Amino acid sequence: MITSTISSKPQPASNSKVCIIGAGNFGSCLASHLGDSENDVFMWAREVELINHFNLHHRNPLYLTEHDFPQSITAIGPELPDKEFIAKMDVLLFAIPTQFLRTNLKYIRANLDLNNLPLLIFVNKGIEVGTHALTLEIIVDTCGPEIAKAATFISGPSFAKEIVDRQPTSVSVASFTESEAQKAANLFHQPHFRCYTGGDPIGIELSGALKNVYAIASGMSDGLGFQNNTRAMIITRGLAELTCIGTAYGASPLTFLGLSGVGDLFLTCSSSNSRNYTVGYRLGKGESLEEIMKTLGSVAEGVSTTKAVKKVIEELGINAPIATAVYEVLYEGKDTKVAVRELMELPPSRELDLPPTAGGPARRLLTKLGMDSSDLDLLMHPRL
Amino acid sequence: MITSTISSKPQPASNSKVCIIGAGNFGSCLASHLGDSENDVFMWAREVELINHFNLHHRNPLYLTEHDFPQSITAIGPELPDKEFIAKMDVLLFAIPTQFLRTNLKYIRANLDLNNLPLLIFVNKGIEVGTHALTLEIIVDTCGPEIAKAATFISGPSFAKEIVDRQPTSVSVASFTESEAQKAANLFHQPHFRCYTGGDPIGIELSGALKNVYAIASGMSDGLGFQNNTRAMIITRGLAELTCIGTAYGASPLTFLGLSGVGDLFLTCSSSNSRNYTVGYRLGKGESLEEIMKTLGSVAEGVSTTKAVKKVIEELGINAPIATAVYEVLYEGKDTKVAVRELMELPPSRELDLPPTAGGPARRLLTKLGMDSSDLDLLMHPRL
Repeated sequence: MITSTISSKPQPASNSKVCIIGAGNFGSCLASHLGDSENDVFMWAREVELINHFNLHHRNPLYLTEHDFPQSITAIGPELPDKEFIAKMDVLLFAIPTQFLRTNLKYIRANLDLNNLPLLIFVNKGIEVGTHALTLEIIVDTCGPEIAKAATFISGPSFAKEIVDRQPTSVSVASFTESEAQKAANLFHQPHFRCYTGGDPIGIELSGALKNVYAIASGMSDGLGFQNNTRAMIITRGLAELTCIGTAYGASPLTFLGLSGVGDLFLTCSSSNSRNYTVGYRLGKGESLEEIMKTLGSVAEGVSTTKAVKKVIEELGINAPIATAVYEVLYEGKDTKVAVRELMELPPSRELDLPPTAGGPARRLLTKLGMDSSDLDLLMHPRL
Repeated sequence: MITSTISSKPQPASNSKVCIIGAGNFGSCLASHLGDSENDVFMWAREVELINHFNLHHRNPLYLTEHDFPQSITAIGPELPDKEFIAKMDVLLFAIPTQFLRTNLKYIRANLDLNNLPLLIFVNKGIEVGTHALTLEIIVDTCGPEIAKAATFISGPSFAKEIVDRQPTSVSVASFTESEAQKAANLFHQPHFRCYTGGDPIGIELSGALKNVYAIASGMSDGLGFQNNTRAMIITRGLAELTCIGTAYGASPLTFLGLSGVGDLFLTCSSSNSRNYTVGYRLGKGESLEEIMKTLGSVAEGVSTTKAVKKVIEELGINAPIATAVYEVLYEGKDTKVAVRELMELPPSRELDLPPTAGGPARRLLTKLGMDSSDLDLLMHPRL
């Protein structure tokens, strides 16, 4: 059994004190969800104007701008919470972009008391530019292996706007330490918000990052005028690629069958609300990446993830033709029509050939976590 | 290695002689696809009017009515092809409803020469009413185990209308005998039509039948006014249920990650072109099943499959709350709103708990096929 030697303090049955680090689209949506169910929620933001506006009007001027937030939420900042404040919290939830996580975690680690640890939840997605590290590795590097093993990850098909409208939603909640995942599931679970627990945080993180690459591919196909059969093919073959990459990396292939895998892939690939899908759609319509990035007005994470994924698949020696095609369109100026024709002209193959030599990167990461090969086998074949 | 002692005659590199049994929506679409790539295609129909009209105008008066079929297709019937005719065929493709297969196969078996066997391909979906048999079992019962082991199954996200329009499409092609699957893949493979081979016909058949139950659930959710998060949840949790049922039955869990599993599930659950989705949608809008069946004008296979699935999950002792809810709405008059509320109020759980005692029905079926338990293990864990 993979598990941490430390665990978070006992969580109250209700009225948890939750500090959310980040007031973006997803951070403020989760603040609203937890405030809605009688917790005391503090939402940290960098921007003084946002903090003041929020505390005065209970509205976020930048995200979910039409939504009235519960009175039980207080915006705090711009300094990160100090030791005394954190000691009072039952839960610390990180909802800041992956690229800013390392710096912020270093600061916050100094204010964490291991004997009075809040439940640590991470909802950011993506791979760190430069290092290609997953969030789990950023946590090991900044906070050490025991905190990383207790860390909990939430991911799944969940548009923020629909969550605050109480549309029925389900997510995956994963941690190496099952009791921590269970605490997080209890905190979030509501009649309109179901949580399913699991033990493969690496798989959850990889699907969260990689899905955006396939959302670009799916948008491209729609932009070129292809229809339902083609989109279903791209989503399914994308899932097979994602599963191969994940398995070679050291995740369980079954994780990709779940809400954070196929669920989020399906949502992101089939909705024009997704920024990554939109980038692909406009590429398919013939616009250049430069034009699109100039006018999109917000970051499409899949564009930088594609670059990182290219490195990862090269390192693993995996055949991932769709991700490679997206890379060639984004970074080598390949025409989208040519990319599609080349994909369709690949020789016939078996449907799912999982790589035999699995787990290189996860093995290195688990060594950092102080775990061994038998733990990896457990991770890759959970309860089968 | 599971494989048949018999195999079909060597297939020509091009210009195969193909007889398609059935001239419905999918049968005539595949006739068009194979005729389009320089094969000699014969399409059998029961209706004399259809046969005459088709041979005169190269149009099907009942299905794909706007489509001009290739001149290389000849409609035949209404008698089933005789021994002499079948002896000349390289391929026999069955595209008739599962409920009519047993009778037709009994007749055709008498005309098959095992030393000069055409490649046998099956594209029908569903579970036989009354017996709950899969097509594989109908083949064993009527043609014996060696023909069943050589039989090949094609399934995947493929609307007929889009195939005849040459929209890029991919399908799964599965047989216990890999060389037979390979022959079928070679026959169908085109730049706009990709075939992926696999060795789990039971998994392919189960996904083809069960997906229709979840298409009804997905339509119901949309009919009730729920949005993207909810549909992604139903598709994903439906996939988890389908995988549990399939694994308990004796299929490989990984088959459900493929084109015939998640690919077809995604297509059927997200398109108003699907009859099963439409039944669910209208139930969600408050119509009764009786009203819907009266005015739908064509059979929605998921309605009868739901009844068969209920028996199968009871026999296997599987927890399948979505399929059960669909059954209760269809056959016990449960209100759709109540069904959804009850689903959301289930206690939190682990994401994917595959059943430990797997393979009862497949074990019985494999015994009929003259195979043993080690074959089942190979089937359930292919190349892992």
